[in-house]
Amino acid sequence: MRLHEDKYITLHDLDEVLGNAPRCNPGTVELALWDAVGLVLADDVVAPFDTPIMPRAAYDGFAVRSSETPGTFKVVGSVLIGQVPSGVLGKGEAYYVTTGAYLPRGADVVVPEEDVTVNGDLITVSKAYPVGKNIDEPGSYARRGQVLASKGTVLTPYIMSALLEAGVFKARFYSRLKVSVISTGSELVRPNTPEEALREFMNGKVIESTGSLVKWFMGNYMPYLTVLRHVIVKDSYGEIMESVKGALVESNIVIITGGTGPSDIDYVHEVITSLRPRYYVRGVKMRPGRPSTVAVFDDCRVVFGVSGHPISALNALTLLIKPFVESMLGITSTIPIPRVYGKLAGSTEPGRGLWRQVRAKVELGDEGYVVKPIRITGSSFTSTLAEADALVNIPPWVNEAKEGLLVELILLKETTKVKR
Amino acid sequence: MRLHEDKYITLHDLDEVLGNAPRCNPGTVELALWDAVGLVLADDVVAPFDTPIMPRAAYDGFAVRSSETPGTFKVVGSVLIGQVPSGVLGKGEAYYVTTGAYLPRGADVVVPEEDVTVNGDLITVSKAYPVGKNIDEPGSYARRGQVLASKGTVLTPYIMSALLEAGVFKARFYSRLKVSVISTGSELVRPNTPEEALREFMNGKVIESTGSLVKWFMGNYMPYLTVLRHVIVKDSYGEIMESVKGALVESNIVIITGGTGPSDIDYVHEVITSLRPRYYVRGVKMRPGRPSTVAVFDDCRVVFGVSGHPISALNALTLLIKPFVESMLGITSTIPIPRVYGKLAGSTEPGRGLWRQVRAKVELGDEGYVVKPIRITGSSFTSTLAEADALVNIPPWVNEAKEGLLVELILLKETTKVKR
Repeated sequence: MRLHEDKYITLHDLDEVLGNAPRCNPGTVELALWDAVGLVLADDVVAPFDTPIMPRAAYDGFAVRSSETPGTFKVVGSVLIGQVPSGVLGKGEAYYVTTGAYLPRGADVVVPEEDVTVNGDLITVSKAYPVGKNIDEPGSYARRGQVLASKGTVLTPYIMSALLEAGVFKARFYSRLKVSVISTGSELVRPNTPEEALREFMNGKVIESTGSLVKWFMGNYMPYLTVLRHVIVKDSYGEIMESVKGALVESNIVIITGGTGPSDIDYVHEVITSLRPRYYVRGVKMRPGRPSTVAVFDDCRVVFGVSGHPISALNALTLLIKPFVESMLGITSTIPIPRVYGKLAGSTEPGRGLWRQVRAKVELGDEGYVVKPIRITGSSFTSTLAEADALVNIPPWVNEAKEGLLVELILLKETTKVKR
Repeated sequence: MRLHEDKYITLHDLDEVLGNAPRCNPGTVELALWDAVGLVLADDVVAPFDTPIMPRAAYDGFAVRSSETPGTFKVVGSVLIGQVPSGVLGKGEAYYVTTGAYLPRGADVVVPEEDVTVNGDLITVSKAYPVGKNIDEPGSYARRGQVLASKGTVLTPYIMSALLEAGVFKARFYSRLKVSVISTGSELVRPNTPEEALREFMNGKVIESTGSLVKWFMGNYMPYLTVLRHVIVKDSYGEIMESVKGALVESNIVIITGGTGPSDIDYVHEVITSLRPRYYVRGVKMRPGRPSTVAVFDDCRVVFGVSGHPISALNALTLLIKPFVESMLGITSTIPIPRVYGKLAGSTEPGRGLWRQVRAKVELGDEGYVVKPIRITGSSFTSTLAEADALVNIPPWVNEAKEGLLVELILLKETTKVKR
């Protein structure tokens, strides 16, 4: 990030870059909903029935005819949830029903269990109950033809529960986009043991963690992708070229971390330009993460280059890569990331027209989150990560973010109220 | 939830219940950090070194002696990040260094590449640079002995990056707590195909989804647990007893969904009481989810009973089970759930001294989230789940939640800005 990249790179506006995302159809597949949590609906999902399909009891109690209340009834049977009633309610008869059970034909009201007097197989109802009382009528949950979830919705377990209740069991989804992560850096190692890690560390090596962070973030918040592989390659044109070419054969998305050599030699730039992308952006107006790269090869093949620093990569993920991929798949609703809002308790540095992300401590006050920016000393982007509760996103149109400003945060941790 | 449980159950205060969580030590294990993301630190993690361990360049440039600036230097070598310098800087000499590289002995300043004039193997520095300029001194990232992450912290990739940079590669973690999920309900089915699901649905059966939701929630937000199994059993004392006894042999946490039979027969209650728990709560002051059950058998064996409705179960997960388990493991900092704050744009029903959760639509306004409660009609707890953006938590001390009140939400989805 201390590279003087501005000398070489035309910085692009983030919104402009996002507006140039291609629309990718990676193919669709029809799946049972329970096999598709995290995937993106490729069609609108429409209610196939009026649900409930028959009147259902909304209470444990007795199903009777409204016109016979008040009165005394003979209990001739029962219908529990999960059963389909076979009988028809005769005059002066009642069925015991549980919440969610379908009513026997002829019944038009449910008298709650606690409102009757039981005497052997007779019950007495002491007041009149109107038609439909304590009953969920057909169509009261969903109407046939009603759109229950739109194309572009990521299926969450919450939405799945609603669809199952409405009689939807399968749908068409986009196939998962395939991702390769390439961590570049001659200094990077992926040791097998902590002891090996210590030896490497003492020799000036760096234990790879940015690519792992990218994979974890995608696993949690971008479940419509699948990471095929994560490799580490040296800072060399040949190694990076070979790995990118290989990755593009079988991946829709390639994420390259790092890749800038000494004296600003930018191997990623050289590799990408020689592969002749359809659309190419080298440098986005954000800090950290300015050298972030986007190269579109076709509608379903995109290479992103991000900084090797975990914080910069996270910034690129939240501001650039996730929205870009959402646009590619036409995603309109997805699994939430912990994106919250709070008021600044201190000011931050001027912005110079960039999107920027500042680490902060966060406390919960009477008016919501209170956000205290952490001052960074030294060039370490990483060490304050253990201390920070959140990353604050400040947009380019806010030059000086002052105390009291409402800002957007990505929470990195949640502090519990555990007594120690 | 329409059960008139108040007749039978003494409702307990949520804070009181949470205060009775036992402290469980499930055993500890020393692991490499990269194998432990999501686990809970069993000890404080202390910096083993001053880091960086040697002075590092904070810029790409030339390492020289400050006392010789301004002046002309001969470039005698280079140190890249990932290398350990072997040479010593002689008088009038310079080394080329990249950001993050250790300095050769004798150098005390880095002159940025763009601030020198290069002439063959000579460079000219035109002004004086003070000692330490553009250098990260030893200990400037972390000081030896400094606590970097406390006992009770869930290891996130963010914290891992910081610890790796500080030379910490392994730590002691609590073993994962083992969980069994038991979904009870004679109406529940887990079909193999959508076609089978449709047949069962037409016969009044219910496709199990609450247990699946519990598993998904735990996988995303409680990674220090592992779900061993998820079974479905009928509403019968015998089946529930057998499955709970079996689960308690090998699990720390047992989650039972549903379990209330016709006429409020509470099989879960009967099973739990006959197993003689050390601490037992039947009913917590919250809505939905009042019949939530907590039974502590020993420090590391707890049974939770929750409603079979997905929304009630989610309420129990966020308000009761997650904080209870966090207290058991002494968790002080964890992976954030999308817990945000916003202002009510409409009022909700009076609270009657209960914690309650209301579904809502959420929009982003100039002052943060604007929260519009959804009115629920009918007894369906599920159908609005596809529509709702968030669940609003309203505490018992707020009787009437009025327009303008700041409330806590759990986001169920995130709406993207994709152009359609």
